[in-house]
Amino acid sequence: MIRDLWLVGIGTGSPSHLTLEGVQALREAAVVLMPHKGDEKDALAALRRRILEASGSLARVAPFDYPERDPALPYAERVALWHDEIARRWKAAHDAVGAPGPVALMVWGDPSLYDSTLRIAARLPSKPRVRVVPGITAIQALTAAHAIPLNTINGEVRITTGRRLRDGGWPEGAETLVVMLDGECSFRGLDPEGLTIWWGAYLGSGDQILCMGPLAEVSDEIARMRAEARERHGWIMDTYLLRRG
Amino acid sequence: MIRDLWLVGIGTGSPSHLTLEGVQALREAAVVLMPHKGDEKDALAALRRRILEASGSLARVAPFDYPERDPALPYAERVALWHDEIARRWKAAHDAVGAPGPVALMVWGDPSLYDSTLRIAARLPSKPRVRVVPGITAIQALTAAHAIPLNTINGEVRITTGRRLRDGGWPEGAETLVVMLDGECSFRGLDPEGLTIWWGAYLGSGDQILCMGPLAEVSDEIARMRAEARERHGWIMDTYLLRRG
Repeated sequence: MIRDLWLVGIGTGSPSHLTLEGVQALREAAVVLMPHKGDEKDALAALRRRILEASGSLARVAPFDYPERDPALPYAERVALWHDEIARRWKAAHDAVGAPGPVALMVWGDPSLYDSTLRIAARLPSKPRVRVVPGITAIQALTAAHAIPLNTINGEVRITTGRRLRDGGWPEGAETLVVMLDGECSFRGLDPEGLTIWWGAYLGSGDQILCMGPLAEVSDEIARMRAEARERHGWIMDTYLLRRG
Repeated sequence: MIRDLWLVGIGTGSPSHLTLEGVQALREAAVVLMPHKGDEKDALAALRRRILEASGSLARVAPFDYPERDPALPYAERVALWHDEIARRWKAAHDAVGAPGPVALMVWGDPSLYDSTLRIAARLPSKPRVRVVPGITAIQALTAAHAIPLNTINGEVRITTGRRLRDGGWPEGAETLVVMLDGECSFRGLDPEGLTIWWGAYLGSGDQILCMGPLAEVSDEIARMRAEARERHGWIMDTYLLRRG
């Protein structure tokens, strides 16, 4: 039975993003739940294992496979059933190794930002105590790589998704917009006039690539860089910041 | 002459917020710029020194005092002149210790979020290469402490300041709002109907205090807790998340 579940943010692709609290949590965990297929490509799965090893953790590894999502179902129901099934697999994976003590799950970025692990944890029948260890997000890795502030002085910042940007366009009144989960270069659907973009992929890793400039001038270049990098690596994780004026 | 300036995010008050990259940067720095009076109260200044020591850094410490801001000047001019003067003091502090090599400055939270060090760094006459090491922000420490997601599923998140909330009220269409730099409990100026608040102070430290609930019910309690804690500690750093529905 999972009584204590620790969701450990591990940053965006550099083992050095891990915090000292994250290192300590991985060391103190008795079991680490480890996805071994599914959303992650081989390079990411290998990095996850390298981070765990580098932490000095002696935890038992409990591997689980991500289930498939049923494309025939409506979005909300599909996600809910998928979360139910992942919770079941966490429990089964944990039961199989049978070590008592805290259970850790390594989460890319920070468990609070566009991540479903908190919602999945709430579905565990054992109702565990959930501890969140914050980690460096792609937003922070992006602004750090470009050495830019996220906000203007006393300015507002909006964080949104590629889907929202495609559906709703530029949010009225927005000055700084960070776009996450965008697999379709949705910035190409915007009127680029007056917008500057700071884009980055594989942030924090040795493969990091960056591009910035007036959106009108670099939009095509980013789309081309993205497609080329995705082809070469077989996967891509990227994010970008848009600023008006 | 400062040729390489490293802005190192150190999180919000727990030495364990430091990342492995942050530890390494503090170890490799030749000089660490260290404020020894000004905005920081004794407890924070002591924590800053403790974090530096715990990193194993052997850097020379270059102390500097923060200048006063001139309250007679208009806001923008006051801030600009204040930044100019801080840049001069960084340079003077560095010149005084005279050790060649990278210069580090420890920054609470993350250097990209409501922080002026990037703007001050741009005023250094030596035009140094600036490296940003991301750190855990108060937003992340808040959501981790409450074990809540920052965003709803596919939802937008807005980050704003207490001043903007006082001046503009609840932003139209906002669902999740994080408020930073609010010294005046500006949530009390909102119509609380339908809003839930998650509040926290001294996040990540042993003094951490939290409160959450429907804004209508806990608004006064938070204002009371905040005033009492500020009185007891002599200072406070806090932030909060508001969600509609």
